[in-house]
Amino acid sequence: MKISNKAWVLVSRPKDYFENENVRMMELKVPELAIGEFLVKNIWLSFDPTQLNWMKRDTYVDKIEIGEVVRSFSVGQIVESKNNQFKVGEFVSGLFGWQEYAISNGSFVNRINPIEFVNPPWYSLSLFGITGMSAYFGVKDIGKVKKGDTFLVSSAAGSVGSIAGQIAKIIGAKVIGIAGGEKKCKWVVEEAGFDYCIDYQKVNISEKLSELSPEGIDVYFDNVGGELLDIALSKIKRNGKIVLCGAISVYGTTNFYPLRNYANLISRRARMEGFIVSDFITRFAEAHKELYIWLKEKRLKQREEITFGLENAPEVFKKLFTGANFGKQILKIADI
Amino acid sequence: MKISNKAWVLVSRPKDYFENENVRMMELKVPELAIGEFLVKNIWLSFDPTQLNWMKRDTYVDKIEIGEVVRSFSVGQIVESKNNQFKVGEFVSGLFGWQEYAISNGSFVNRINPIEFVNPPWYSLSLFGITGMSAYFGVKDIGKVKKGDTFLVSSAAGSVGSIAGQIAKIIGAKVIGIAGGEKKCKWVVEEAGFDYCIDYQKVNISEKLSELSPEGIDVYFDNVGGELLDIALSKIKRNGKIVLCGAISVYGTTNFYPLRNYANLISRRARMEGFIVSDFITRFAEAHKELYIWLKEKRLKQREEITFGLENAPEVFKKLFTGANFGKQILKIADI
Repeated sequence: MKISNKAWVLVSRPKDYFENENVRMMELKVPELAIGEFLVKNIWLSFDPTQLNWMKRDTYVDKIEIGEVVRSFSVGQIVESKNNQFKVGEFVSGLFGWQEYAISNGSFVNRINPIEFVNPPWYSLSLFGITGMSAYFGVKDIGKVKKGDTFLVSSAAGSVGSIAGQIAKIIGAKVIGIAGGEKKCKWVVEEAGFDYCIDYQKVNISEKLSELSPEGIDVYFDNVGGELLDIALSKIKRNGKIVLCGAISVYGTTNFYPLRNYANLISRRARMEGFIVSDFITRFAEAHKELYIWLKEKRLKQREEITFGLENAPEVFKKLFTGANFGKQILKIADI
Repeated sequence: MKISNKAWVLVSRPKDYFENENVRMMELKVPELAIGEFLVKNIWLSFDPTQLNWMKRDTYVDKIEIGEVVRSFSVGQIVESKNNQFKVGEFVSGLFGWQEYAISNGSFVNRINPIEFVNPPWYSLSLFGITGMSAYFGVKDIGKVKKGDTFLVSSAAGSVGSIAGQIAKIIGAKVIGIAGGEKKCKWVVEEAGFDYCIDYQKVNISEKLSELSPEGIDVYFDNVGGELLDIALSKIKRNGKIVLCGAISVYGTTNFYPLRNYANLISRRARMEGFIVSDFITRFAEAHKELYIWLKEKRLKQREEITFGLENAPEVFKKLFTGANFGKQILKIADI
């Protein structure tokens, strides 16, 4: 078997944010399968801000090595198999990377059962993947959102933020989002059903928050870090919780906005806590079940932007860090 | 009754740290007692960093008004009473302030039973007062320290820090303190029994921590804020906890060291949480009981510095913010 495999390989580490020069498209050969392995034809690639961390340094997982294919979640179809557990034709999700074909032995691979909620199969990269899981466990387990809470979320039109706000709303919170631009804010309120969306390009966030919720914020779900996090610290209520899901403003620079309002955590007996969604892996089924019900009841809306062609991977990835991102970014690189 | 009452009155708010000009000694008249009131002769005054917050602004309690006597915890003896619950001769603790005499109706006043553990009575300002309670609930409830943890505490020779470290040691943690100067560090290790004390005047804290605990810190008990907190954030282990008890470096200035390493809270799934000891008031008896046992078994050592004379209140208070503080600061202003 001598399938040629186009792949984006990491050739240098991003200094700050990701640049096109950090990766190079290469033509690799797919080696013969060993016993126990199978070959996945990649179809949908997922784009997540934490990939920038993987490119830069060891964090909660080992960094991507120079010369390795860029690591990313994706969904593909098995086209050849020497593994009894994984059959040709099945859809699977895993860390298959920015390439046309990936070889796997099945570890950390999820088989996508062709039931309603993962159809289309790339739903397992969004609502039923790390996007939805981060929102679900961040809101429920770290934020412990309760009915009547005032809930604030940044990147409200982003994949995680939009789901987090909708879950908080279902729980019974008053939900305020922060997003950039009229189009996004309109969607956040009219489609995702948030109570309010603050357009950070237009208004002073701190003043607007004081107006919308003079008594402060019970839970802030942070995807951004930096200045927004510092504003949230100034607004946090007694026994409030700050959920650190991501810190896009921090990932790409060493010259980021540092926090000054942390002493409020003392006087307001508040908590700031980070989490990594993979720690909740044993409870993903529980989350899938509840999200599926809400989706079927049309209480949850997803927004995705699907781009086509592996050659566009670097451009789509960069959108996550420029404010251009709106919903879940999916790159479709092959037909089913 | 026309007892004259010397009192330190707040005449201006500290801009940054406390200055002598913020208070003035005045000669007040003690008014007649109303029914239900009693008169306390103040004997021992407590000095706690949070008093600076009370002088400056509303926080978790109302600020001290200009013209009001400086608020502080103290222990005194009842010398006159029109309250059936409080008898002449009894020792009581409460927020009686920087003055010779205070009138009270009994609210928020604790009667000091003449049992062993509050003898001398000013122990109810230290180990059995907010000092000991902050250490106890900070270590046990917020930090959730377990046997085998690596526990780091700043202001290790201070009143709260020294008790916190000893409690963590009793629980079975490896305990590292940070203090300034050879004399303090010697006491922290030899008397308080910490495993190690880092003299921040002599060594690079970050390097020393890497040497003493290459795997990082499970719990950091913070009394300081600022740069030390940022170093701790860089060393925090997976699922680690940062207990925000105080932030002396922050209270007195708007130009303090801001935090840069908070994104570690995400990758290390760590938590930073503040608390106010009065929230645990219903459980003080439980803490008293356990601390008393440890004290009797000589597993806990307290260090106090007793100064004499109400005129010295401003100078003693300032010691809390200059690094001159060593143990619990008590000002004795009258004989029993």
